[in-house]
Formats: sequence, structure tokens, C-alpha cells
Amino acid sequence: MQVTIARKAHFNAAHRLHNPAWDDNRNREVFGKCNNPSYHGHNYELIVQLTGNIDPETGYVMDMKKLSDLIQEEVCERFDHKNLNLDTAEFYALNPTAENICVVIWNLLRAKIDLNKQLKVTLYETERNFVAYEGLA
Amino acid sequence: MQVTIARKAHFNAAHRLHNPAWDDNRNREVFGKCNNPSYHGHNYELIVQLTGNIDPETGYVMDMKKLSDLIQEEVCERFDHKNLNLDTAEFYALNPTAENICVVIWNLLRAKIDLNKQLKVTLYETERNFVAYEGLA
Amino acid sequence: MQVTIARKAHFNAAHRLHNPAWDDNRNREVFGKCNNPSYHGHNYELIVQLTGNIDPETGYVMDMKKLSDLIQEEVCERFDHKNLNLDTAEFYALNPTAENICVVIWNLLRAKIDLNKQLKVTLYETERNFVAYEGLA
Amino acid sequence: MQVTIARKAHFNAAHRLHNPAWDDNRNREVFGKCNNPSYHGHNYELIVQLTGNIDPETGYVMDMKKLSDLIQEEVCERFDHKNLNLDTAEFYALNPTAENICVVIWNLLRAKIDLNKQLKVTLYETERNFVAYEGLA
Amino acid sequence: MQVTIARKAHFNAAHRLHNPAWDDNRNREVFGKCNNPSYHGHNYELIVQLTGNIDPETGYVMDMKKLSDLIQEEVCERFDHKNLNLDTAEFYALNPTAENICVVIWNLLRAKIDLNKQLKVTLYETERNFVAYEGLA
Amino acid sequence: MQVTIARKAHFNAAHRLHNPAWDDNRNREVFGKCNNPSYHGHNYELIVQLTGNIDPETGYVMDMKKLSDLIQEEVCERFDHKNLNLDTAEFYALNPTAENICVVIWNLLRAKIDLNKQLKVTLYETERNFVAYEGLA
Repeated sequence: MQVTIARKAHFNAAHRLHNPAWDDNRNREVFGKCNNPSYHGHNYELIVQLTGNIDPETGYVMDMKKLSDLIQEEVCERFDHKNLNLDTAEFYALNPTAENICVVIWNLLRAKIDLNKQLKVTLYETERNFVAYEGLA
Repeated sequence: MQVTIARKAHFNAAHRLHNPAWDDNRNREVFGKCNNPSYHGHNYELIVQLTGNIDPETGYVMDMKKLSDLIQEEVCERFDHKNLNLDTAEFYALNPTAENICVVIWNLLRAKIDLNKQLKVTLYETERNFVAYEGLA
Repeated sequence: MQVTIARKAHFNAAHRLHNPAWDDNRNREVFGKCNNPSYHGHNYELIVQLTGNIDPETGYVMDMKKLSDLIQEEVCERFDHKNLNLDTAEFYALNPTAENICVVIWNLLRAKIDLNKQLKVTLYETERNFVAYEGLA
Repeated sequence: MQVTIARKAHFNAAHRLHNPAWDDNRNREVFGKCNNPSYHGHNYELIVQLTGNIDPETGYVMDMKKLSDLIQEEVCERFDHKNLNLDTAEFYALNPTAENICVVIWNLLRAKIDLNKQLKVTLYETERNFVAYEGLA
Repeated sequence: MQVTIARKAHFNAAHRLHNPAWDDNRNREVFGKCNNPSYHGHNYELIVQLTGNIDPETGYVMDMKKLSDLIQEEVCERFDHKNLNLDTAEFYALNPTAENICVVIWNLLRAKIDLNKQLKVTLYETERNFVAYEGLA
Repeated sequence: MQVTIARKAHFNAAHRLHNPAWDDNRNREVFGKCNNPSYHGHNYELIVQLTGNIDPETGYVMDMKKLSDLIQEEVCERFDHKNLNLDTAEFYALNPTAENICVVIWNLLRAKIDLNKQLKVTLYETERNFVAYEGLA
């Protein structure tokens, strides 16, 4: 009996989209105003979903409080009120698009969650744009 | 041509998380403030999704008004403004975690909906916590 | 590494549910107040999701700006501030239920998006009712 | 001790903006796509606020259930699934802009609510546009 | 130059509406299902607004972090995961209607905030019902 | 007959809170992680409200499309995808707290809107924090 549980979290960060292999014109052409060298920023809203069996003793798939604490430690403390390009090892050499941020968060959490649970991460960059990743098919 | 339709509903209830096989210390340790013997409560928000074929005569998978009425009769009238632990047969001997409430609602609705339609139930316990169940895999 | 990106959009339209093969009584019985011959209307909210590989050069599955422009051109300009029954070729002979509108939008977008990307369309007719379509299973 | 209570409701309607004293060109110029002769529509979301004293016996400014029933009877049953221009006496000779709809709803409710309570009506035409009216200053 | 700042918070609690001066029939008649002797519950969402001058050194009316901590200490720790009727001194002899809860929260916060700032408290009992209090007129 | 109309808009920007008259320790102590020298960012959501008379010819207080265009030109084009501290004249010498940004936006719009209309600006820095300004009392 597989049930999915989900927990929301959020962090606020600056970033800029840029490919160092390209010249400035190509970067501006592809990334537009997201390429601004002075950075811009977002309120990132995160939904972390785990799918697994209900533990018959607790009635939980996982304790939501522990899941919430894990997201705080692994994701929010790492990225909140940071400049993703300048302040984080993860995006030192990786373009911080919503897609790449989502995959990075999935990898950070995957390493800390029992493998008998499936993991899905959804990341809202704005209320109108979001991305999701569930791991390799 | 399988299409999914979804309808939202809501009910407000009190509950407490507790495993009668454990002593009080173990219950407090595992369930924390959710174990409060005087109960606490939530606004539960429910999303019921059905997946099936579009009826060519109506253009409906199912009449949303009938689905809404069914959710009111089977779920909301049963649980709204109730104490889940004290007032309901369903949680007399089952811990009313969000996971278990979601599975109970799925079973109540599954019994009333044509088997040629798949059923998924999503239950928000708060805006930040939710669970989902789609039946046995 | 398959990632999903999603973009929201919206349009406001009038419509009426009606099956011309039925008499007025049968139409009123099945469609109720949605059968009002003078029409009623909705703010339709749309979520378009694409699933595909991240382009290693851009970090994008698809440029969100281009996806947003495509939705404006193919969907919003066609249906916004229109009477779906009277003003559109798509619903001249097709009942504009949420289910049928969703499939029509999916077909319009499918024709314009690379086939190496999966497409899912979710359409909210109200905050409480929505439908989704992912193509033939 | 003046406290404000508020209740949300909603109705779905078709309308068109048009001034019969103007010719078609002037109407199109001023009202743009909202002038479409075939109508378009909206999900109208309504917030009704009353300000008054707390009754010491009930702890209520007014019973929310009674306020909700009043909004259903006076507003939603009148306008839900209607064409405001064609089906309602209120907008037979009054342009159904959000501003005018809001004032009409305020007048309908004002006639039914004790004068020792102040009344404010907020009407969302879309998630991005709304209007409010509190009566003559 | 008076500016308003606002901070949201939330707590989950059980309650029951009941007037001990009335018999059971009268209580059921007035409070309906909210009178359930076994209690029901809500996710209470709170908006605390302060209006005052901007401090020219900080650019703040008040540090939002300090306001957030104050709300946690004075309101959320007191009421979260509690039965308002059984577990709190504030509602031992006061009917916990949304109106009364809002006034109690206003009084708790008013005692801790500089008198040169105006205070307004808005309390959502559900997404569809809310109340607000700004102090004596 | 004074009616209020409101329009929502949004922009995404980077910023940092800092008072150049203070040393680094004092800045970190007061502004905490908001003082990060590499900047962080937000999705700013804006609500612009105008209060005035309904024009009897149009039924409008002001054409919402014109109000929306004005907000785009005066606010969003100026601040969207910018670093408020580095890229804008307005915050070259003014700490970009939510309070100060709100007052700056009010001043920008006040200069472009008829003085017979009152103006209120509400700015959400996150879903949980917002500020509002209505001009000098």
C-alpha cells in the first residue's frame, strides 16, 4: 500500500543564468534579462514528495517533522539568502536554471532518504513557472 | 482517450495521534504535540481525481456535480465538524494520521465509483503538508 | 535525465454546455444551469507541462519564455475573451466541457512541440474543478 | 469593540462591456476585447465584510452560516451561471463593469443587513483584478 | 510617513462553541455542528499588521524577524496543537469564536508592541471565513 | 460614490540590506542574512489600488488595461530582473527594505495618476511578509 507524503518549504536566493563557454552576445541572446551580470532573484517554493509504505505502528510513511527538518538542513540552510552563482559549491560550475536547481536538490535529498522510498522534487521559481524531477527513469 | 477530472472539497475536524499499544512516554516521544490528549484540529482540503474515458454524448468523464455530491455524502458529512478519534467508526481503532485518513477516504469513494475509472485522493492536512493515495500498485 | 517544466497561463471565456442531438428537456436535465442558452463564463487557468532532457548548453528543457509565447499564440489569443460556442471553430461542433477544452488545447500544443518531449495539459475551470490530459496511453 | 467578519463566495457569469449611447467603433476603442458582442465570462470571487459589535451571548458579530446563506440567496442565486447583460434586471441598463457589479451587490446586501453593521464588498473579476466598495463616504 | 508591515503565522487547534448559561438545546440551535461536545478543529492563519514610521537608520518599521518571533512566542506557542476550550486560560470562560480569538490575540500582542505603532490582527478560521480587529475605535 | 480598483503585478529582483554609515559587524547584527554581500532575491508581488468615482460613461474608475500598462512601464520595467542596489538610481543611496521599496513605488505611480484618485500600494516580499503605503496621513 504505497502512499505519497509531501512537505513544502521555501528559500530566497539571487542568481544569474550564464554559460561561460559562450561570449556575452550569445549569453544575452539566449538568457535575456536572466543574464543580468548584477544578478536578480526569486522566492523559491519547494515541494518534496516521498512515496512508500505506511508504517503500521505509527501510521506514517515518514514523520513529517523529520522530513521538514531534513529539508531545512540539506536545502534551505544551504541556499536561503545566498547568491547561487557566488556562494554555493553546487552552482560554481553549473548554470542555476530551475531545472538544474531541482536536480541538485533531488540529489541532496536522495542521499539522505531511505531507498525504499521514491522521491520527487517540485520547485517553483515563480508562481507561474515550476519544474519537477523524480530521478532517472 | 483517458482524461482526469478533479474536484476539491473540505472538512474541519479534531484529532489526536496515539498508538494504544504504547505507553504515554513512547506516544509523546513519537507523536510530539500531535499526541495532546485534549486533541487539536485541522481544516482538511481534499482533491478527488478520476481518470476515465470522455462520454461522447455528454463530453464528461463524470458529471462534476454528481462527483461533488458523492464527496459530500461519503466524506464531508461523515467527518466534518467531528472528532475523528471519538466520533467516527473509521478511526476508532486506526490512528488518524493524514496517511490513514487518505486511505480511508479512498476506500469510501472507491466503493461508490465505477471500476472503469481510476481514483486518486490527495489530502492537505495543512497548506504545507499533504498526502496522496492511488490504490494498490 | 527526464525533467518536467511547467508554465501557467489564463484566458477568460463564455460557454454553454449543449448536445444538439438532444431536445431542450434532456439538455437541461443533464447539463443543468450550464445549459443556460444565454451562456455563462469562467476564468480558465492553464498549466502546460513538458517532460524532456535538460540541454547541457542552456540548462533548459525548453526556454520558458518561448513556451509562454507559444501558449499565448496557440491558446490564449484563440480563446481569450471569446464565446467558445459562437466564436471558435474548435467548439462549433464539440461541446465545450472542461474535458473537451483540455483535449483541444493538448492537440493544439502537441502540433507545435518537439515529439521528444511529453506534454500534459491541466485546465482549471474554477478553483474547485479541474481536468488534465496527457495524450493517448 | 468593533470587529470585522468576512465570508467568501463565488459565482460564474458571462458579460460584455458596452455603452449603448456610443457607436460600435467607440465601444471597441474603449472596451477592447471586453466589448465582444458574443460575450466572454469570469469566475467572480466575492468577499463580504461586516463590521459591528460582538454579541456577548454568542461571541458572534453575526452567524457566519446566516451570512453565507444570505450571500447565496441575494447574490449567487441571482447571478451564478447567468449572462449578466441578458439575464438580469440589474444590468439591463447598467454596464456590468467590475465596479458596477460591486456596487450592485453592496446595495443588494445593504438592504438585508442591520444598519448597525458597516458593509464592505470586494469583488475579484480575475485573480489579478479586483474592486471594493464600502458605501457612500 | 506611516507605513504598514504585515507578517503571517499559523497554528492548528481544536475548539467547540458553547455558552454554559444556555441548555444543550439552545446551544445546538445557535451553534449547530460547531457545538459538537467532542470538539472539531481548524488551521488558523494569522496576519499581524503594524503601522508606524520607517526608522531612517534601518529602513524598517520593525524588524520582521523580531515580529515573527514575537508572534511565535505570544500566540503560536500558546495555542498551537491545543484544545482552546480545555488547554488555555484565555478560553476557559470565553467562547472561542473566531471573533473572540482575534480580540484575545490582539490584546496579547498589544501588550508587547510599542504604542506608537497601530496594530491590526486578521484571523482566518478557514479559507472562506475570516475576522479582523484593530482595537477600540 | 468612491470605489476602489486594484491590479496585481510582479517583478523579480536581487537586493541586500546594508547601511553604509555602519561597520560590517553592526550591519550583520541588524540585517542578519539579508546583509549577505553577494545579494539574495525575491519575487515581489505588487497590488496597486486606486480609489475614485465611477465614470458614468464607461463604468470604470480607471481602465484596468491602462493601469496595468502604467505599472509595467513605471515599476516592472524599472525593477524586474535587476539588482536593486547596483542597477537602480532609486536604491543607490536608499536601503532597499520592503518598506522603502513600497514608498518608492508609491511615489513613482503617484506622479502619473490623477490627483482625484487616492493611491495605495501593497508589496509582498514573500508570501509571509508584506508592506503597504497610502501616502502621508
